[in-house]
Amino acid sequence: MATPLMSILMGSISDWPVMEHASKTLEELNVPHDVRILSAHRTPDALFQYMAEMEKQGVEVFIAAAGGAAHLAGVVASKTTRPVLAVPMETKLSGGLDSLLSMVQMPAGIPVATFAVGKAGAINAALFGISLLALHHDQYTSTIADYRRKRADKVLEVGDPRKG
Amino acid sequence: MATPLMSILMGSISDWPVMEHASKTLEELNVPHDVRILSAHRTPDALFQYMAEMEKQGVEVFIAAAGGAAHLAGVVASKTTRPVLAVPMETKLSGGLDSLLSMVQMPAGIPVATFAVGKAGAINAALFGISLLALHHDQYTSTIADYRRKRADKVLEVGDPRKG
Amino acid sequence: MATPLMSILMGSISDWPVMEHASKTLEELNVPHDVRILSAHRTPDALFQYMAEMEKQGVEVFIAAAGGAAHLAGVVASKTTRPVLAVPMETKLSGGLDSLLSMVQMPAGIPVATFAVGKAGAINAALFGISLLALHHDQYTSTIADYRRKRADKVLEVGDPRKG
Amino acid sequence: MATPLMSILMGSISDWPVMEHASKTLEELNVPHDVRILSAHRTPDALFQYMAEMEKQGVEVFIAAAGGAAHLAGVVASKTTRPVLAVPMETKLSGGLDSLLSMVQMPAGIPVATFAVGKAGAINAALFGISLLALHHDQYTSTIADYRRKRADKVLEVGDPRKG
Amino acid sequence: MATPLMSILMGSISDWPVMEHASKTLEELNVPHDVRILSAHRTPDALFQYMAEMEKQGVEVFIAAAGGAAHLAGVVASKTTRPVLAVPMETKLSGGLDSLLSMVQMPAGIPVATFAVGKAGAINAALFGISLLALHHDQYTSTIADYRRKRADKVLEVGDPRKG
Amino acid sequence: MATPLMSILMGSISDWPVMEHASKTLEELNVPHDVRILSAHRTPDALFQYMAEMEKQGVEVFIAAAGGAAHLAGVVASKTTRPVLAVPMETKLSGGLDSLLSMVQMPAGIPVATFAVGKAGAINAALFGISLLALHHDQYTSTIADYRRKRADKVLEVGDPRKG
Amino acid sequence: MATPLMSILMGSISDWPVMEHASKTLEELNVPHDVRILSAHRTPDALFQYMAEMEKQGVEVFIAAAGGAAHLAGVVASKTTRPVLAVPMETKLSGGLDSLLSMVQMPAGIPVATFAVGKAGAINAALFGISLLALHHDQYTSTIADYRRKRADKVLEVGDPRKG
Amino acid sequence: MATPLMSILMGSISDWPVMEHASKTLEELNVPHDVRILSAHRTPDALFQYMAEMEKQGVEVFIAAAGGAAHLAGVVASKTTRPVLAVPMETKLSGGLDSLLSMVQMPAGIPVATFAVGKAGAINAALFGISLLALHHDQYTSTIADYRRKRADKVLEVGDPRKG
Repeated sequence: MATPLMSILMGSISDWPVMEHASKTLEELNVPHDVRILSAHRTPDALFQYMAEMEKQGVEVFIAAAGGAAHLAGVVASKTTRPVLAVPMETKLSGGLDSLLSMVQMPAGIPVATFAVGKAGAINAALFGISLLALHHDQYTSTIADYRRKRADKVLEVGDPRKG
Repeated sequence: MATPLMSILMGSISDWPVMEHASKTLEELNVPHDVRILSAHRTPDALFQYMAEMEKQGVEVFIAAAGGAAHLAGVVASKTTRPVLAVPMETKLSGGLDSLLSMVQMPAGIPVATFAVGKAGAINAALFGISLLALHHDQYTSTIADYRRKRADKVLEVGDPRKG
Repeated sequence: MATPLMSILMGSISDWPVMEHASKTLEELNVPHDVRILSAHRTPDALFQYMAEMEKQGVEVFIAAAGGAAHLAGVVASKTTRPVLAVPMETKLSGGLDSLLSMVQMPAGIPVATFAVGKAGAINAALFGISLLALHHDQYTSTIADYRRKRADKVLEVGDPRKG
Repeated sequence: MATPLMSILMGSISDWPVMEHASKTLEELNVPHDVRILSAHRTPDALFQYMAEMEKQGVEVFIAAAGGAAHLAGVVASKTTRPVLAVPMETKLSGGLDSLLSMVQMPAGIPVATFAVGKAGAINAALFGISLLALHHDQYTSTIADYRRKRADKVLEVGDPRKG
Repeated sequence: MATPLMSILMGSISDWPVMEHASKTLEELNVPHDVRILSAHRTPDALFQYMAEMEKQGVEVFIAAAGGAAHLAGVVASKTTRPVLAVPMETKLSGGLDSLLSMVQMPAGIPVATFAVGKAGAINAALFGISLLALHHDQYTSTIADYRRKRADKVLEVGDPRKG
Repeated sequence: MATPLMSILMGSISDWPVMEHASKTLEELNVPHDVRILSAHRTPDALFQYMAEMEKQGVEVFIAAAGGAAHLAGVVASKTTRPVLAVPMETKLSGGLDSLLSMVQMPAGIPVATFAVGKAGAINAALFGISLLALHHDQYTSTIADYRRKRADKVLEVGDPRKG
Repeated sequence: MATPLMSILMGSISDWPVMEHASKTLEELNVPHDVRILSAHRTPDALFQYMAEMEKQGVEVFIAAAGGAAHLAGVVASKTTRPVLAVPMETKLSGGLDSLLSMVQMPAGIPVATFAVGKAGAINAALFGISLLALHHDQYTSTIADYRRKRADKVLEVGDPRKG
Repeated sequence: MATPLMSILMGSISDWPVMEHASKTLEELNVPHDVRILSAHRTPDALFQYMAEMEKQGVEVFIAAAGGAAHLAGVVASKTTRPVLAVPMETKLSGGLDSLLSMVQMPAGIPVATFAVGKAGAINAALFGISLLALHHDQYTSTIADYRRKRADKVLEVGDPRKG
């Protein structure tokens, strides 16, 4: 198996049905990556060890998913200078707005790049990660352009929905 | 100086004008305590060292103030089993509702007790901390009752404000 | 049956399916406690009598659950100096944000420690209550550490969810 | 001085600059009333005694102002079957939306009639109270109609503001 | 059939499943009342005629239910000086918070007394209306006290839900 | 088929079940119109070409539906001076409030007329579009008046829902 | 003075500082219009008479500004089939979100086209109104295109703000 | 002057006082960059030309700031596959939450990485951009680590604020 270029982290197995979309997008676009359940609150030390190991193996981008208090991405960012992408999870209280605000509002100095709540955010974090890799991994240069063209074609195919 | 029973933590000196009310309440009610600026994101390791040191010295309760992403109380709670009291700081975005939700919504298993945003929350976290101490430090048994009686008397003194 | 150390109060039987998680957590961790349906609005005097009786029996901590106007925790706090822990109930209007704000925003002088809306809040209020007891009841010293270790182990067991 | 028909209650002298508008509206329209600072949390027993005394004197309507947790109107309603009118006070957290939701969302069985946050709510609670009295106190039959006519005339006087 | 003392208005038949609770509460407590579907936006003139007719027949209190833009209560209040009670209907957009704010925020001079969104609000508007009538219709003096006592007894019957 | 007077645009086929109500309203009231799926983000150039073609064919009003980031109406308005009507789509995060705010808050200079989230907004955008046409297409003068009369009659038919 | 093509309505003189921007935009672009203070709640009958008079004079578009309960635009729309444009006014409670939701959420059948809260909304309602007129008043065909070109040029003039 | 690696875009000169912090951060850390005022709504074509020119010159990352409807970042992302970083601007309506939601909620396929509202977001977008460059521009490897160390030292210097 190829050395991972990205790592997808989430605090609980309950986040996997959403984050699976990030993992599948990376897989579909041939980006080797690791996935791991680790909690900022329940297993902080195991999280820090895992991150150090991943950086040593060559991971360039971390994607972190969390809901509610949603501290995971911030705690990851406090321990690495590599880009950290955050995907807020939906919550019962406010549809995930709480998770989003907890992630996006990092204090100046420790940035976390945040994406939409849920599935769209998971896919876009993966695609955004590839756009970072594409800046210096030549094999990904055409990957995103191809991906976008296919999705545009699907939109254009529909045309007038009354004739669908 | 007496051994501290509580420790007040905040991520930035800009939180001090609010948290000073917690410190002054403790001082006024004769509760020895420490105060420290330490950031969950900028100085995570120094934070963990400080907490261990405080526990060794006998601190029984931590009060943590933070705003925005507001991870401090949760990160503190991930490293101690002592009671952690959280005071959300006001923010420009939503008056501190974001800070509050980031603190109060800890996942099951790692509790953080949350108080109101700003000054009232700072004072109440201090008073609540004393109510914990009072369960086994006899000298604080009458402290809160006295404090409440004085404030009740102030309310009763006003009476009809038209005659003020 | 052992003398109760905590009392769980709620305004309506409809809150029980959530608060049962608090009661079960206490049971599982061997904390004797009482549970009672009493309403701040419909049965204020019965509530005050019950509280006085509980304090006499040795209850050290009150947990109060309420939704909507959510006055119960505040009314309890107005009549005791013991620690009051509040668990907001979910509402149709705003997912429980209204209950949360009604509980957490107590005026300076009468603190109420607030937890998350719903099940996670119910469990965390129970655990937080035990962390208070642990400060002076030796038998609970290891209870929380054990509880946390087991939950951390469960997280670590999962590892990479793609292999689940 | 005439026997009061209404009583205006508020938890803190800081609510007076807003509630003064309710008192002045009643004064201007010749409705005898009492005004009192009493807190649901800090002075619950004094509150209950005052209410019983007012009912004995003939008070028909209670107006209660509160902010934040905003329990006052609900606590008043739990101890009387007379109409209770609630005026939410502005808060820093959410402009008073928290106070409003805490007041308006009383459980079925214990109604509280709620008005707008702040000055407009204070004036309207007073006017609404008079509309209740007018149903059986003949002297107030024309009071509201006159009041409305004057305000309508003021609107009509302006006409085209470009010519102001 | 007795002359109606109250009138329940709503803009659409879709509001009836909620407002039926107001009507049933009045029926159960022997308050003669009328119910009518009339829209502030679609049938303004028919609404004004109906109101005039109801006042002539002796209606003392109007209850108006509406959702979304929720103008009905305000439009009713613009055409009568009798007490107007507003019940906001639930909405998809915000659970009814929009309806609530549209009703409760009447400008100074034209008061509308607002209750909770949905069923609890419908029941409480009915009960509040009876509390107004009780000020001068002797037959309703004991109605509310009886109603409250029964509901309190139901709460007290439950006791400890673990034994349910 | 008649030359279209309006064009209904939406970014995704998933918006069609809602926007079909706009199309059906136009059809029912005999307004020739085009419907097209085109995305501001995925197919910007195809969108611009389509718009130019529609204007050449005589389209006078554009209706644009979008959700979430909801840029479609604004992007359309940036490329035409014809009236643009916006219909926000429901979202999981906030019921569509996010879509609404993204559409309604256009900067001064590039107006977009916004309607309610979802079905009611779709129907009203269609009706509003006809009210524009009616200012200079005589055949639509009576269309809206007839439409309103029929809906008013339906309201009046119901009367007292207890007799339904 | 020319016959008015538009009428700007607002419920209170306090709305004029904002709505003056709508009036000035119309003036600057040579659109004859009337401006009037009339309240849906305080002066409903005078409002209806004024509207009928304006329609007779040839007014084609109504612009209505209101805040809080914000019923004015809806009440206007209930009495005319001409296009009604709504401008929500800022409020203390929620920055005007309440006004916006009260205006934009009209029930299906009675459309109101809503614009942004405050000054940008006032200007855009005026510009949108002109885009309606331009569909059949030839003299306004170039007005909007010119207006846009000037504003675009102002944006382009700035270029790199570091060199400003 | 060095070839720009990043471009900072904003729709209006009024955004410059905030975005200046992004530009200054880049300057301080020696990252050549361009800054330009261009509006998605007022100058779409000039925006597209500028972007193409920048890509040709070697710009690797775009930072886009916008408020309210806040379409700029999304429109930029629709025309490039390079990473787009979004900084929401504060608004009167909701403190910038509207801008944030309009930016962060891009549909799946066209990612935009979003940061906090205002100054902290501007600084973090700049720092995050450098973390991207650092993945393949060796000279920036140590830049971020140094930057973080200095800020951590500043936090540690404060210590106990009571001694400040």
